[in-house]
This record gives sequence, C-alpha cells and structure tokens, in this order.
Amino acid sequence: MSQRKPIAILAADVPPRARQSYAPEPFASLLSAGRIKHTLGDLFGLTNFGVNITRIRPRGVTALRHAHTKQDEFIYVIEGRPTLVTNEGRTQLAAGMCAGFPAGTGDAHQLVNETDEDVLYLEVGDRTPGDEVTYPDDDLRAEFVDGVFRFTHKDGTPY
Amino acid sequence: MSQRKPIAILAADVPPRARQSYAPEPFASLLSAGRIKHTLGDLFGLTNFGVNITRIRPRGVTALRHAHTKQDEFIYVIEGRPTLVTNEGRTQLAAGMCAGFPAGTGDAHQLVNETDEDVLYLEVGDRTPGDEVTYPDDDLRAEFVDGVFRFTHKDGTPY
Repeated sequence: MSQRKPIAILAADVPPRARQSYAPEPFASLLSAGRIKHTLGDLFGLTNFGVNITRIRPRGVTALRHAHTKQDEFIYVIEGRPTLVTNEGRTQLAAGMCAGFPAGTGDAHQLVNETDEDVLYLEVGDRTPGDEVTYPDDDLRAEFVDGVFRFTHKDGTPY
Repeated sequence: MSQRKPIAILAADVPPRARQSYAPEPFASLLSAGRIKHTLGDLFGLTNFGVNITRIRPRGVTALRHAHTKQDEFIYVIEGRPTLVTNEGRTQLAAGMCAGFPAGTGDAHQLVNETDEDVLYLEVGDRTPGDEVTYPDDDLRAEFVDGVFRFTHKDGTPY
C-alpha cells in the first residue's frame, strides 16, 4: 500500500506541474504562457503512462505540432472548443470529443484555443522507450532517453 | 495516414463494444447487465494503451475487484457518483475526480454505482505483456497472453 498516494482526487484541486515545459527556449515560454498542465497519473504512482489535465487559455497552444515514433497519445475534451491541427488540417472539437494519435504515422498534431473561453482536456501518453519526436513546423527534435525528452535542433546540435 | 480512422469523435456517438466482457460465466453476464463499455483508443489505432468510456447503470459494477501485476490503470469520472472499492474500503467519487491504480501493489479495485443515476467515466489501461490479474473476492485469475486475457479458476483449472 502506498503511504502518501491518494485514493482519489478532484482533478481541479491538483496544483500546476512545477515545470510547465521541458522544451528549450523560446518554445518553453511560448507554450507556458498559454496553457497550464496538471499532472494526474504520477500522483498515484503510475509509470507506464502519464495523464495530465491541461487548461488552455484563449489563444493558447498545448504543444508545438509534433508526432511520436513509439508513443501513443489520446485526448478527451472536458470543457471548451479547442481546434485540433493535424497534417490533414484543422478540426473543431467540443466537450465530450476525443482523438487519438498512434505512434509512427508521422501525422503531427497540436491543440490550439482559438476561442475566448478556456479549454480543459485530459491527455494520455505512454512511456515506451526509444521514442523520438518530430516537429514539422519548428527547428526542433526530441529523443526520449532514460525517461526524459532531450531536445536538439533538427541537425542534432544542442540548444 | 490511416484510411478509415477518424480524426476525432464524439465519445457518446461510439457504439457499445461488441463483446462487453471477456470473463467466463457467470461473471460476464453479471458485469454486462450493469455497465456498457465503448472502446475509444482502438478506434484511432492506439495499441500501447486502451481507453474506454463506460456507463454504469444504477446498481451496476464495472469489474470484479481486481489488481494487475504489470499494467497501470487510471479512471476519470465524467458524470455521476461512483463508489471506488479498494483494499482500504469505499470512497465516494464525483464528476471531475480521478484515481490511478499502479501495477504490482496488490490493491484490488472496482467501481460500483450505488446511486439511482448513471455514472459515466473514462478508463485507461496499458498493455504491458506478462500481466496477471488477481481477484481477491472471486475464484478467478487471468493472464495476459498474446494481447488477450485468459481466465482460469484460482487453482489454474479452466472454466
């Protein structure tokens, strides 16, 4: 039995994640200005996948548009109307809608909030080793090494 | 790019899963009478973890109380007030609450609906190979073999 882990929590009560973005600057500041991530899965000791509840402010962006080579992702919209941007274009979402992003397709995605109201959504991603992340719109790439994403320029040079 | 996979879906529009329970009788009928699972993650081609949206009718039960040895689980309550039953007892949940069940603790859990209104919740579980499931309250055990749970009596004899 865990000592400090809760049995259940109200997601809205969870404080924001200490470090809001692991990307290098200027991306970290750009992302952190428009959205707030709250870690949920780790609070219970989950290790195979992560779950966040994330609030996107009006005009905020959840992530740079990206695709994973090994890790699947899933999102479920709780409140608001985010726009999902993929290789195929823009899709307006609403509360109760969900989307999944299987690893290895190269289809890069992000959520943006183009409305004047907050968006609240759940995001799930697994932690399969050897993952790489591609960013078609930015000079960035990432590798998942020892459980952490390491970022470089597209040519491999460090930030 | 996938051919038939949707970009996004309204979870409420997804038809119920064809096979509602993979457990042997009498457990399958008992479970299927009180809850309806709708597969979400597989619709997008996710393989590393599964996501369902599940409706629990009044007096329904989501699962026999169980614990996984290798696979983590996470739930998020969308509507209603389910009761989470674990080794530590009963915890009343409400919309916006979540709970996680890390693999390997032996803490067995289930959700039951002791109210007169439906419960709707999201459940996430990964698909780590070699998983075994223990059921402290029932003569049942399961092993995850080739992506499918195989059920036996506790002594290993088949149903």
